[in-house]
Amino acid sequence: MRESPWKPSRERAREREVKRDAVILAAARAFKERGYHNTTLDDIATYLNVTKPTIYYYLSNKEQILFECFRAGLAQITAALSELADSKASGRDKLLTLMRRYAAAMATEFGWCMVRVEDQDLSPVMSKRIKALKSEIDQGIRKLIAEGMEDGSVRKCDPKMTAFALAGALNWIGHWYRGGEPLTPEQIGEHFIELLDNGLRPRTV
Amino acid sequence: MRESPWKPSRERAREREVKRDAVILAAARAFKERGYHNTTLDDIATYLNVTKPTIYYYLSNKEQILFECFRAGLAQITAALSELADSKASGRDKLLTLMRRYAAAMATEFGWCMVRVEDQDLSPVMSKRIKALKSEIDQGIRKLIAEGMEDGSVRKCDPKMTAFALAGALNWIGHWYRGGEPLTPEQIGEHFIELLDNGLRPRTV
Repeated sequence: MRESPWKPSRERAREREVKRDAVILAAARAFKERGYHNTTLDDIATYLNVTKPTIYYYLSNKEQILFECFRAGLAQITAALSELADSKASGRDKLLTLMRRYAAAMATEFGWCMVRVEDQDLSPVMSKRIKALKSEIDQGIRKLIAEGMEDGSVRKCDPKMTAFALAGALNWIGHWYRGGEPLTPEQIGEHFIELLDNGLRPRTV
Repeated sequence: MRESPWKPSRERAREREVKRDAVILAAARAFKERGYHNTTLDDIATYLNVTKPTIYYYLSNKEQILFECFRAGLAQITAALSELADSKASGRDKLLTLMRRYAAAMATEFGWCMVRVEDQDLSPVMSKRIKALKSEIDQGIRKLIAEGMEDGSVRKCDPKMTAFALAGALNWIGHWYRGGEPLTPEQIGEHFIELLDNGLRPRTV
């Protein structure tokens, strides 16, 4: 079997995954550039130097590609939340770590999809899954704010509205960030976080 | 002429304006509910109990209606900026006034259009006009931040990035606010502004 022109199945699975990820990334770029509704699968195929049937080999339709773009971006934020779950740091310090990772996720190719595409563009099933992921992040932020109020590192506030304001400011990076900015994503994140952290800290600390 | 079944021309012009505004408002509601791409002129006509030709009498196409929705929302913010131009208040106090008006504009029916619809959906000419209005607002916020830094009411920061973070948090209200929330738009605005104002104020004040 060594002489088979086919690669071992594990290697093929790995290659398939790499190619599938490349389709998702190319789609995220195309959506950001032309808008979701104005982008066709042909546009994405052209971008990758392949034909439309090749795209279908990896993902079943445009909506599924959009769903994967959402998921890839949101996964970076939920990963940060999971890592923080066992941390013994103050609520404020955990929020700072989360906001840095959140800002970084927004400056990736997936940031635009995460904030600009409508839930209406997804089927009810996929929309529900995305809403669950978004809600997990929202609840995670509220919990860190509540922890910070408890340990005195965050001033008294409404956790829900404050979580919306923090997420809103950071989400906005996904709206306007286009790459090639004079500031790096990290620098942009730091400017945003400076304002928000100063806003969270009690006046007595 | 008093017996003419037609109303005087001034009255007719006024009625026309009221009806045109009603079309724009109904469209803003429909766009928010179904998304811009999924809304037809028939949907808007049905909402108003009229036929599509009636819509065409007031506005030439869906894109022009979208443009008017953008403009109606942005006008509320530029009006606030104009009113503040002659104020002798501190930079911080002027920013507070502006943020209140900004938050209120975002909770109107036009908030969704202002932040969710893509510039790609407008013709180059209209897109350019919207960009100019948006830039006027952005520059106005930056100027107030710079004034605040000058008079000591705002801590030292990067005016551009800080303006983006403030506007981002407030714009986000347009994303999620749907009416029927447990908090009024004013209360939501106050929670957001509490965080942002605390973020702007120097620690020594």
